[in-house]
Amino acid sequence: MSEQAATRVERKERTRSALLDGTLSMAADRGFAALSLREIARSAGIVPTAFYRHFSSLDELGTSLVEEGVRQLRLALREMRRTPNAKLGDTVRFVFEQVDGKRDLWGFLIRERHGGSAAMRGAISVEMQLIVRELVVDLSRVRALDDWSTDDLELAADLIVSTVADRIADYLVIDAREPARIIERAVLQVRLIALGMGTWKP
Amino acid sequence: MSEQAATRVERKERTRSALLDGTLSMAADRGFAALSLREIARSAGIVPTAFYRHFSSLDELGTSLVEEGVRQLRLALREMRRTPNAKLGDTVRFVFEQVDGKRDLWGFLIRERHGGSAAMRGAISVEMQLIVRELVVDLSRVRALDDWSTDDLELAADLIVSTVADRIADYLVIDAREPARIIERAVLQVRLIALGMGTWKP
Repeated sequence: MSEQAATRVERKERTRSALLDGTLSMAADRGFAALSLREIARSAGIVPTAFYRHFSSLDELGTSLVEEGVRQLRLALREMRRTPNAKLGDTVRFVFEQVDGKRDLWGFLIRERHGGSAAMRGAISVEMQLIVRELVVDLSRVRALDDWSTDDLELAADLIVSTVADRIADYLVIDAREPARIIERAVLQVRLIALGMGTWKP
Repeated sequence: MSEQAATRVERKERTRSALLDGTLSMAADRGFAALSLREIARSAGIVPTAFYRHFSSLDELGTSLVEEGVRQLRLALREMRRTPNAKLGDTVRFVFEQVDGKRDLWGFLIRERHGGSAAMRGAISVEMQLIVRELVVDLSRVRALDDWSTDDLELAADLIVSTVADRIADYLVIDAREPARIIERAVLQVRLIALGMGTWKP
């Protein structure tokens, strides 16, 4: 690639990032559904028609945010996969570290998960289902759960994923009191679920 | 009260209900934050200035919806209070019956819980905390939990309430597949938590 082309690619990537960041920042106040293409373009310093060089629609931009956000969580949960049962707590804490590094993005995901348009809610639900399924695969490798049906494993995985998502929502409240306490609560709640799994009769 | 005054009171009550219903119906599409006082008044067939005979602000109207909705859930949870452990499932099913009778209201609460303005999120969070505290009182009467600290009881109550709220959110998706399955999932997840509580070492 010529140096000029490389610069063009870099510039395009920078504008794309600016569109995503501008959206996150404006959506924090008013929700994604209230934003116009025009103001998102303006926030990235481009004219509205130039928006389409990056995304075919506002929905595609929103879906990109969802995919990029949840892909990060999936990677975080793969860390959990390498961790023996005893260290469940460390893995939950690791998820919160990921969230801490991207508070705007996670605030967006939590807000749009139930509060957004049907398209956004659908996209987030699909991505969360992928996380649940990866966790089902992990759980199916645990010897103590050998007797469990896939339905039961999915039930437990869904409970764990929902619980962590709820505590992330609590954690992201701007004036959340004692954020460290919220993380510890998530750790203990996941532990309580794991204890229940230990005595569950499939 | 004279007959004329009674009619006036009835009419005022009818208009108040129309304002609340109109808000629920319009908020289902666009979210509460996107609605104007003018269009809410119009939906109830009154002029904007007449709105203030019923609510001092849009926030007060929103808060009334939250309070009325969650008060119903609290009454539903008081049914749980009268039920021995074995019938936990019946009580969760009872909560879903309550939700079924007021789908618009519950859709509003689920959407605004994380997706609404700071005022709405705050109001819903406060009401949910009241439910958690009532459940803590119930749990503190269970003999098997005598050793538990209030913190631990609150941790478990918060997990149960969040879990039921999450399944209500799944249940209210318009094209939710197999709604009966979502209710059964809520029942089984609460049972899994109860099992965990049975082996928790405080």
